[in-house]
Amino acid sequence: MKKSEIYRELGINLDMALEAHNILRGEAGREISGISLDEENYDLAKVKIVNVLDPRGAAQIGKAPGKYITIESDVLGINNKAHHQELSEIIAEQFKKILPFKSDQDSVLIVGLGNWNATPDALGPKVVGKTMATRHLHGRVPEELTNGLRSVSAIAPGVLGITGIETAEIIKGIVEKTTPDVVIVIDALAAGDVHRIGTNIQIADTGINPGSGVGNKRAAINQETLGVPVIAVGVPTVVHAGVIANDIIQSFVEKMRTRPPLTDLSKEMNPPMLKMIIDQVLQPYSHNLMVTPKEIDDLIENTAKIIAMALSSALHPAMPEEVANYLH
Amino acid sequence: MKKSEIYRELGINLDMALEAHNILRGEAGREISGISLDEENYDLAKVKIVNVLDPRGAAQIGKAPGKYITIESDVLGINNKAHHQELSEIIAEQFKKILPFKSDQDSVLIVGLGNWNATPDALGPKVVGKTMATRHLHGRVPEELTNGLRSVSAIAPGVLGITGIETAEIIKGIVEKTTPDVVIVIDALAAGDVHRIGTNIQIADTGINPGSGVGNKRAAINQETLGVPVIAVGVPTVVHAGVIANDIIQSFVEKMRTRPPLTDLSKEMNPPMLKMIIDQVLQPYSHNLMVTPKEIDDLIENTAKIIAMALSSALHPAMPEEVANYLH
Amino acid sequence: MKKSEIYRELGINLDMALEAHNILRGEAGREISGISLDEENYDLAKVKIVNVLDPRGAAQIGKAPGKYITIESDVLGINNKAHHQELSEIIAEQFKKILPFKSDQDSVLIVGLGNWNATPDALGPKVVGKTMATRHLHGRVPEELTNGLRSVSAIAPGVLGITGIETAEIIKGIVEKTTPDVVIVIDALAAGDVHRIGTNIQIADTGINPGSGVGNKRAAINQETLGVPVIAVGVPTVVHAGVIANDIIQSFVEKMRTRPPLTDLSKEMNPPMLKMIIDQVLQPYSHNLMVTPKEIDDLIENTAKIIAMALSSALHPAMPEEVANYLH
Amino acid sequence: MKKSEIYRELGINLDMALEAHNILRGEAGREISGISLDEENYDLAKVKIVNVLDPRGAAQIGKAPGKYITIESDVLGINNKAHHQELSEIIAEQFKKILPFKSDQDSVLIVGLGNWNATPDALGPKVVGKTMATRHLHGRVPEELTNGLRSVSAIAPGVLGITGIETAEIIKGIVEKTTPDVVIVIDALAAGDVHRIGTNIQIADTGINPGSGVGNKRAAINQETLGVPVIAVGVPTVVHAGVIANDIIQSFVEKMRTRPPLTDLSKEMNPPMLKMIIDQVLQPYSHNLMVTPKEIDDLIENTAKIIAMALSSALHPAMPEEVANYLH
Repeated sequence: MKKSEIYRELGINLDMALEAHNILRGEAGREISGISLDEENYDLAKVKIVNVLDPRGAAQIGKAPGKYITIESDVLGINNKAHHQELSEIIAEQFKKILPFKSDQDSVLIVGLGNWNATPDALGPKVVGKTMATRHLHGRVPEELTNGLRSVSAIAPGVLGITGIETAEIIKGIVEKTTPDVVIVIDALAAGDVHRIGTNIQIADTGINPGSGVGNKRAAINQETLGVPVIAVGVPTVVHAGVIANDIIQSFVEKMRTRPPLTDLSKEMNPPMLKMIIDQVLQPYSHNLMVTPKEIDDLIENTAKIIAMALSSALHPAMPEEVANYLH
Repeated sequence: MKKSEIYRELGINLDMALEAHNILRGEAGREISGISLDEENYDLAKVKIVNVLDPRGAAQIGKAPGKYITIESDVLGINNKAHHQELSEIIAEQFKKILPFKSDQDSVLIVGLGNWNATPDALGPKVVGKTMATRHLHGRVPEELTNGLRSVSAIAPGVLGITGIETAEIIKGIVEKTTPDVVIVIDALAAGDVHRIGTNIQIADTGINPGSGVGNKRAAINQETLGVPVIAVGVPTVVHAGVIANDIIQSFVEKMRTRPPLTDLSKEMNPPMLKMIIDQVLQPYSHNLMVTPKEIDDLIENTAKIIAMALSSALHPAMPEEVANYLH
Repeated sequence: MKKSEIYRELGINLDMALEAHNILRGEAGREISGISLDEENYDLAKVKIVNVLDPRGAAQIGKAPGKYITIESDVLGINNKAHHQELSEIIAEQFKKILPFKSDQDSVLIVGLGNWNATPDALGPKVVGKTMATRHLHGRVPEELTNGLRSVSAIAPGVLGITGIETAEIIKGIVEKTTPDVVIVIDALAAGDVHRIGTNIQIADTGINPGSGVGNKRAAINQETLGVPVIAVGVPTVVHAGVIANDIIQSFVEKMRTRPPLTDLSKEMNPPMLKMIIDQVLQPYSHNLMVTPKEIDDLIENTAKIIAMALSSALHPAMPEEVANYLH
Repeated sequence: MKKSEIYRELGINLDMALEAHNILRGEAGREISGISLDEENYDLAKVKIVNVLDPRGAAQIGKAPGKYITIESDVLGINNKAHHQELSEIIAEQFKKILPFKSDQDSVLIVGLGNWNATPDALGPKVVGKTMATRHLHGRVPEELTNGLRSVSAIAPGVLGITGIETAEIIKGIVEKTTPDVVIVIDALAAGDVHRIGTNIQIADTGINPGSGVGNKRAAINQETLGVPVIAVGVPTVVHAGVIANDIIQSFVEKMRTRPPLTDLSKEMNPPMLKMIIDQVLQPYSHNLMVTPKEIDDLIENTAKIIAMALSSALHPAMPEEVANYLH
């Protein structure tokens, strides 16, 4: 019984391409055609890049064609200033490689998705709160001050339950009025393993696509819908309870497998049977039940700080010291 | 020396039409042609309606033609549930009169202007936080549940310093995508008298127009720019320090006026001289220095609650009890 | 294999006496001596009262002797004003029965436990934020205004990770200085079933006792340590991931039980084996991994409002209308 | 007419000893016996130290005997990371000089005074939020990790209007239970000049004494009441509206002084007359009306960050890198 089939039955999408790729390779027992994997190693982090090369690869992994960079680092969620500085530089390098700027004059809109009232979903709004908007400075302060500064705007529009509007609609409206050259969306992700919570960052050049979300289905936020390249930045902050539930059962069966009658059993198990068992325990919430560590507030605060630092470093060609005087 | 001239010299615009009208009438010593005033009295509140009838009236008062309703009530900022209920009904009546709905199917977008990080400027975002969005329910819940519910969406876009984008641009983008029939903007206002802080609400059918703001000049948010009627709801939460400074000098001179040499003096005073004196004391902040009571957090919390109650009552034709089950 | 033994192995304590009692009775197949159960039914709520009558009952259920009232109501977490009003009156009745006041002059200290930065743990601080402190009014406002008002003080001291101090120590210090007659502590609880999240309130006259907490072991907050009666109010907002994990395995085994070889299997399973399986999936967080619904922010906002309303109604003998004027 | 007499009439206390000293010297036209002033100059800051040497000096300046260090720096409120680092080191040096530690084992309690709901009053709680508590680590983590870490606890108790309890009482209770060797209290101050808002920090070894507050009279928080040395850290975030009002009148009269009849006038002016004029304009708020810049939220965020950095650097003898792993 394949994990991919169980997740499909449970209605669970993994937000991280690296996890989806790992499952796929594991189930196939070989590399997947149409998908390649690169790795870079740093003292503080491993960088793994899943390239979904063509529609065939995309169909198998369930992700749009494009590049999905995962930065793995145990120090991400830990409150250590020196490590944060170093890690933010590693992340900034990845941003610089993936951001499709044609010149220093290209402008960017940063969008923080998620609900600021719910800690595990507040990553996006927190990054926006730590981002320095500069778009309004151009033309208002002496030109020598904005020479090294890219035009950056930033918004945290809120979630559907608060606004009543699909977030994609709000962003489309703002993009049409402000015509940024690139959009960067920040969001909390649902992982397939609690190990990844607060230790991974995913950066993708594909934007956000329907069905790959934590819960609310929403329209795509990508180049096709917005008309400009969309870079998606995500950090896993929760795991679906259904994922945990399935892991537990698999782990249990694995443990029992040496006993002859259970070898048979594991053959007879099927996704709908698992769904029935899991739904029964997770009722009445089921899909909307999340697993998250108690210290998630610290993990998110630290991660938001590092991402904001990395973005600031990657976006601005050079920031003259005097600029700070105009930025408060 | 006229207050209107001094304020012009100091670069101060009064956000409340009622105050601007009072000054104008006082200085003219007669009613102003092109402007009419109506009054309604309730146990808990006085309602004063300034009608700017034509361009001549508009030019004199410095406000766009339209209706400016001021609700004055000492109980507005006081934490008393019974009074809040009664007052919110009075306000709801005024909303019903001014909202240009053609049918119960007309939709509305509520926009909370202002900075949620600065207490005196957080009124708009707070009202949005207490507003129940319903736009997304239509089509997702059984029709009998949304029959009595108007389609309401709500957003608090943040201020220019945080987003880098003129708020008017953001709203225009969202209006074009979501096509509401009416827009309601909520904002904190600057008054000309500390008495009005936390005791007055202004409702105008003119939207928000350049130059009438607390500080940042921003493009108009009105029917002309958005293409749909815009109702502006404002509550004074601050007074410009320059207004206080001028009041102090006037009060001082008034006190001294009986002494012959000072009668001459008050004749010689002129707006630039006053500006010089006032700027010297208020440096380096000048225009951005605000006067606000210490308990402004309570005033804003209470007022936001009442406005949200009044809007909910005025907007929804009838809210079936079962709906609440879908609204969390 | 008994649930109580598995939980002991996993280091999980159920915060709700009703749940612990249910397990105990289920495992014993009979009523437990030393523990009685009463029920009251209302339109909107069921009230179930577990009385731990003596040390023998206490030893079995793992809870201090005393009264544990559980109010169960599906409307608790739903944003419906009429229901909230009615439900808060039911809760107020329970408060009135359990609060050991000797006179209207008895004073009370309300303590909101928990971390305001982590949504599922923010219930206590939120109730404190909605509570009207009156202790400082006595002697500062005319006596006729405070006649019907009990002296209420309120504090949200923060959690050990933020303060570095055991919460019990902070409260003891404040109690010694301010000598309240009764202490009420509000806290988020960990339940044994997701059904109870946001639908149950527990009120106990035993205070909070070591080992019965969501995570951090902390010293007792009870009559013995504080010297005054302590009423504990709790609302389940999370379930330990370990509880879910065990439920999943049990449910799985139950489903398989009809197959002869598995009947044997379930006999061979034991708590340490389960712990090994569960720990492996929940690493590295294990005990600190919580399951919570996505909409937990709304559940907590609504529940905090209702508890604050119920407390206000239960605590103050009569609140003269004029008082509100002094309370902002 | 002396400023000191006017302020007495208006009921205004200046929180900053440096300002009180400046007025005193100006009015006396000479140095004040019993008070000395030292200065140190840095690239980014000026440090001015007012030493109130004896009871005679104290009586004149209206401040308890002790040392009042004022750090003046325009870069304090500006969002520039390099400057913040440098400035925090200057401040840390001053902390090290004034903190009366006898050994690295001496423990400290940091208290953030003020109301987190009102931006200009939120400095204290914000510093506490950015402070790393370590007291609970001693005994819980391997000893080599806490060797270089001082025991630090931290609390933001809230204000009288929220708790109903004098803050001094709460702190006394906590100090008695936790027996710190030194207490550090952080508070927002009221200045006598808008120039100082967000550009000055005052550090005093006298604690906080009645009558020197922004508004609410509260009992002293000092060595006498707590039994341990109390260091008070304050940042001006507001100016009383009455101070501005008086400055405006003085500036006006100064401007007019060359005219003979007005020379007489200024002689006839007296504090009660000024009070009458000022009260009339500031009614109904009077003492509780504050002047603050619009961007006060940014000023406070930056200042809180710098103070937290300086405290961390000054308090911990040496922080081993591995410690960070335990601090999240």
